[in-house]
Amino acid sequence: MKLESYVLGSWWAGRGEGAALRDATSGEVIARATSEGLDAAAVLRHARVVGGSALRALTFHERAAMLRALGKHLLGLKEEFYELSYRTGATRADSWIDIEGGIGTLLAIAGKGARELPNARVLLDGDVEPLSKGGTFVGQHVCVPLAGAAVHINAFNFPVWGMLEKLAPAVLAGVPVVVKPATTTAYLAALVVRRIAESRLLPDGVLQMIAGGVGDLFDHLTGQDVVSFTGSADTAARLRAHAAVAGRSVRFIAETDSLNCAVLAPDASAGTPEFDLYIREVAREMTVKAGQKCTAIRRVLVPSAAAADVVAALRAALDGVVVGDPRVDGVRMGPLASRDQRREVLARIDDLRREADVICGDPASLRPLGADGERGAFVPPVLLYCRDAARAHAVHAVEAFGPVATVIPYSDVEEGIALARRGEGSLAASVFSADDDLAAQLVLGIAPFHGRVLVVNRHCAKESTGHGSPLAPLVHGGPGRAGGGEELGGLRGVQHYMQRLALQGSPDTLTAIGGRWIRGATQRKPAQHPFRKPFHELVIGDTLVSAEREVTVADIEAFAALTGDTFYAHMSETEAARNPLFGGRVAHGYFLIAAAAGLFVDPGYGPVLGNYGLDALRFVKPVRPGDRIRVRLTCKQKSLRADKGWGEVRWDTQITNQAGETVASYDVLTMVSVHAMPDQAS
Amino acid sequence: MKLESYVLGSWWAGRGEGAALRDATSGEVIARATSEGLDAAAVLRHARVVGGSALRALTFHERAAMLRALGKHLLGLKEEFYELSYRTGATRADSWIDIEGGIGTLLAIAGKGARELPNARVLLDGDVEPLSKGGTFVGQHVCVPLAGAAVHINAFNFPVWGMLEKLAPAVLAGVPVVVKPATTTAYLAALVVRRIAESRLLPDGVLQMIAGGVGDLFDHLTGQDVVSFTGSADTAARLRAHAAVAGRSVRFIAETDSLNCAVLAPDASAGTPEFDLYIREVAREMTVKAGQKCTAIRRVLVPSAAAADVVAALRAALDGVVVGDPRVDGVRMGPLASRDQRREVLARIDDLRREADVICGDPASLRPLGADGERGAFVPPVLLYCRDAARAHAVHAVEAFGPVATVIPYSDVEEGIALARRGEGSLAASVFSADDDLAAQLVLGIAPFHGRVLVVNRHCAKESTGHGSPLAPLVHGGPGRAGGGEELGGLRGVQHYMQRLALQGSPDTLTAIGGRWIRGATQRKPAQHPFRKPFHELVIGDTLVSAEREVTVADIEAFAALTGDTFYAHMSETEAARNPLFGGRVAHGYFLIAAAAGLFVDPGYGPVLGNYGLDALRFVKPVRPGDRIRVRLTCKQKSLRADKGWGEVRWDTQITNQAGETVASYDVLTMVSVHAMPDQAS
Repeated sequence: MKLESYVLGSWWAGRGEGAALRDATSGEVIARATSEGLDAAAVLRHARVVGGSALRALTFHERAAMLRALGKHLLGLKEEFYELSYRTGATRADSWIDIEGGIGTLLAIAGKGARELPNARVLLDGDVEPLSKGGTFVGQHVCVPLAGAAVHINAFNFPVWGMLEKLAPAVLAGVPVVVKPATTTAYLAALVVRRIAESRLLPDGVLQMIAGGVGDLFDHLTGQDVVSFTGSADTAARLRAHAAVAGRSVRFIAETDSLNCAVLAPDASAGTPEFDLYIREVAREMTVKAGQKCTAIRRVLVPSAAAADVVAALRAALDGVVVGDPRVDGVRMGPLASRDQRREVLARIDDLRREADVICGDPASLRPLGADGERGAFVPPVLLYCRDAARAHAVHAVEAFGPVATVIPYSDVEEGIALARRGEGSLAASVFSADDDLAAQLVLGIAPFHGRVLVVNRHCAKESTGHGSPLAPLVHGGPGRAGGGEELGGLRGVQHYMQRLALQGSPDTLTAIGGRWIRGATQRKPAQHPFRKPFHELVIGDTLVSAEREVTVADIEAFAALTGDTFYAHMSETEAARNPLFGGRVAHGYFLIAAAAGLFVDPGYGPVLGNYGLDALRFVKPVRPGDRIRVRLTCKQKSLRADKGWGEVRWDTQITNQAGETVASYDVLTMVSVHAMPDQAS
Repeated sequence: MKLESYVLGSWWAGRGEGAALRDATSGEVIARATSEGLDAAAVLRHARVVGGSALRALTFHERAAMLRALGKHLLGLKEEFYELSYRTGATRADSWIDIEGGIGTLLAIAGKGARELPNARVLLDGDVEPLSKGGTFVGQHVCVPLAGAAVHINAFNFPVWGMLEKLAPAVLAGVPVVVKPATTTAYLAALVVRRIAESRLLPDGVLQMIAGGVGDLFDHLTGQDVVSFTGSADTAARLRAHAAVAGRSVRFIAETDSLNCAVLAPDASAGTPEFDLYIREVAREMTVKAGQKCTAIRRVLVPSAAAADVVAALRAALDGVVVGDPRVDGVRMGPLASRDQRREVLARIDDLRREADVICGDPASLRPLGADGERGAFVPPVLLYCRDAARAHAVHAVEAFGPVATVIPYSDVEEGIALARRGEGSLAASVFSADDDLAAQLVLGIAPFHGRVLVVNRHCAKESTGHGSPLAPLVHGGPGRAGGGEELGGLRGVQHYMQRLALQGSPDTLTAIGGRWIRGATQRKPAQHPFRKPFHELVIGDTLVSAEREVTVADIEAFAALTGDTFYAHMSETEAARNPLFGGRVAHGYFLIAAAAGLFVDPGYGPVLGNYGLDALRFVKPVRPGDRIRVRLTCKQKSLRADKGWGEVRWDTQITNQAGETVASYDVLTMVSVHAMPDQAS
């Protein structure tokens, strides 16, 4: 059975015999993978031209809806994925992380896209930058999809999650994907790709998959492409130094080796809930997915005084772990993904043993349940203990990518921080403490060396997602040894596939490009009140300038009486004179914006359904009795909620006084129907 | 005269003779530069340990104030810098960009830091991410300064600007700098560093400078260091592939070659203001700093129909440019920075001539005013014309770093976009058009390949800062050939020197670490109303829960009468019933927040000086007549304005109904005095 690649819109088999992919438990050959003869340049071209064009034609909301449909479709097929996933050595619980965790991540990113991105093709980044005194020349950053392809080189441990968590941000950004799953478990990734292709939920060219090596693909990369690599630090360094990557400034995101630590704080001694939570988490992280997680706890940093308690408790917890065929009832930990990985892990344990003693777990004497230890890739949980961590090197640098961790005692908080930093950059750390000040000290001490830090205590433990779980809304990645990359983090991960551009020009020009009205741009004066226009009739720039209203002492007093807000600066000229900002009696800010609404609202039944909020309200200048205010309201930004029958409309709003000075500035947010109201008298 | 390095807190001379730095006009030797014998590892250690610790002890506001003082100090010394700058070949106008432009950029970044950053050491990045149903486990991104050094490798063309625009963001972030100026003009950078060191405005170790090569410095880089490189693409590719950079994931920011284009749009034919603006800008960009600007216009993209007019007008504009000793009156363009650069530029012109004809400018016949053409590095403005740009390669790829540009005709807008993209990534482009739709089409077409795009028309030209000027608030950098780096962009540039960290934990823990109160964290109940506490007495979490108030029809009608807001959903049960969101009569949102103020305000004279705004107000659920509301106000974030006698206090505010459901959610912003008020009755 030759594992085929999905390229150029169809399934394709490489030449030659290819590498054998084997069942992790039985050693049986599942398939063979080869990409010999692959035309990698054509694959990239197909992505850029066919897939990229199709994606860029869609809005963010359309891409998000597509991803949502894809996630729901895959969820319906999950049992087929679970079944095949056993062959990777994963237990059902391990596969849940990979399969439902992966689909859930894709759905979460789709949800973020629908909620937090506009229904548009250009993403505005930050506010307008004033660049001139007269306001005729301004700046605005925008993000647009790169015109290239996203090349995703994934690790063997989470073939589904690894593929979907990278796919979703790229597609949401508008960039097509070429995925190269790790060969060891490529058959599972390929099954998911097959189901995606059959679903026809993604336009042609948006997803291609290479089974086997990438051939000369790197030679064809350009500065518009993005490589996202998960794997070893050595391979990352080699790829990063590739002539095309270094020479054409190809964006290169890497997740590599990581000596993640879990720190037991001095307050969390035996008998505290945090101690028990710590033991449970370390044991879990060592055994979930047989420790083949880039975020797994490798360094168990504990106060010297608590070391004996920790060792005893961890031994007890690990003793009960049944290792064997993941299909067999009662088995908690399956084999590693391959015999090659087993050899690799045993070699790394040997490296660690030069500085640390094995205190639990003997690979030689393991008898896996329901499986042949000579054919499957089994390794038991192995716990080491390092007596002199300050002088040690391997325990801070060598990642044994299996169920392996080292207990490292520290003398005081300063040393604990220093030892954690010896990892030289990690994906994740956790701190177990019920003392928030101590936790803050530890977290800020190790912060520059980490991408994610979790603090666990009795209050959050029940709802905590755990040390090792990257989550869609949080960044995943770490500095230094961990690769220096960043993925996910909600919309942050989407921007990795976009080019940020500083735009400069007149307010009208930048409004035309970005689709958001900028102060200084043309104020259109529609024939009717803009609140009488249904969503699609509203034009960016549609403006209402209200009549004027004098603010009187009577207004202020009536407002105070009605609302109960009798702050002295509103109530008494004498008292208010003592206020250094006002120097005299002023109107309530709340009165100004309410009176402004009185001036701009069109009261009758119409397409404006309601005001759902205000943003960035600033009271710029006090309004005193006798001042006259008016308000300008301009249609600033529109985002259609296609499935809801209405759209969000943001109105740039400015209240000015009789001298034309701005007294308040804000955005009014309304929901506007796409239809003229059934019996609207307009 | 040996140019000394400023390292380890003192001036130090390298061994050996070193390279000769020469006056660009006369060839006279100014100094010799060598760093032989430099202990680069010690320099990095000094930065990290001495400089880094000092910076990290300061808040963002303190660092911003330090930079502001430094900028003002340097501005007072500018004439000395102008005088020395002539030796680089710069005219007074060129030096203005370098010297006052550089100091202005530093001051602008300091200003952004003071205005837009909190007076704190940790920068919160984005909002709280809810990670659990019960709310006991949440996420928050924070940014902290990297624990390493910023290594700035600068280009020869702007020795002052290049140094200060990189220094300011790094120092504001809290990261010390090791600057390596380009050797050719290092004497000017060294003078500025000498004046900075004498001023003692920066703590020891925050700024070091290496005159000459960096020796083995790269071998000692770690994942906590940042390299920011400006120079050739070849050197950038070599440094990026360095074993330490690629192997330890050292952040590497690069600005390299850039074939920037200026596009004349089809509407801007001869006789239009945009045509004249175009000619003026191209001629200026070719000659300012003798074309030695990474953002200078290299490709003059014009509609075929306008090509003859453009060529004629540019010839006329360039004919009048007097080249010579920049000290001499009437000289508009000085020499290149060195004879080596002259040789380099002439060689690149030869490359271009294989595909394009020289139509203006002859280096061989140039007679510079007041200077010896055989000793100075003079090149006249050279304009080329490329007849077949679609088949050409060099004109899109070869950067002649001098007063050199190529006119490239295009047939239609699509071809214009395609040719612009052939630059494979540029720092800056400009589009000249009075047609905003056309401009938008051109800009979005070239956007993925650019870091900055300027649209010039008759409306903004007078205030435009021009094609070639990077500005502090806008990103500077470009994809692909331009290096893939990003600098400046206001606070974006500061984050390049910080590590972003995803924090997870209980609301209380994350409040303790980030300093901003998170919903779900402890609500402290102070003995007095929190509005009676001066700034320093307020504690994050101080909470007021108000009394309850019933909202009546009479309230709604009185509010409508007073404000004039008679929107039908407030006024009539029958009418409101037709609204799909409300289904019945509801209170004004403005009334709710005003009544909430009535419930939470402490009316008497006290430390709260005023409410200067609201952020992120959302009306979550309608309030109907008979509903009872109360409000919770919690001290969320504090930022002291040390020089003003008050601080900004942000209050997390939530209005709930009688069922405990949230009806409105927002932040109230107040200014709170650091003093109990002189005669406050508290």
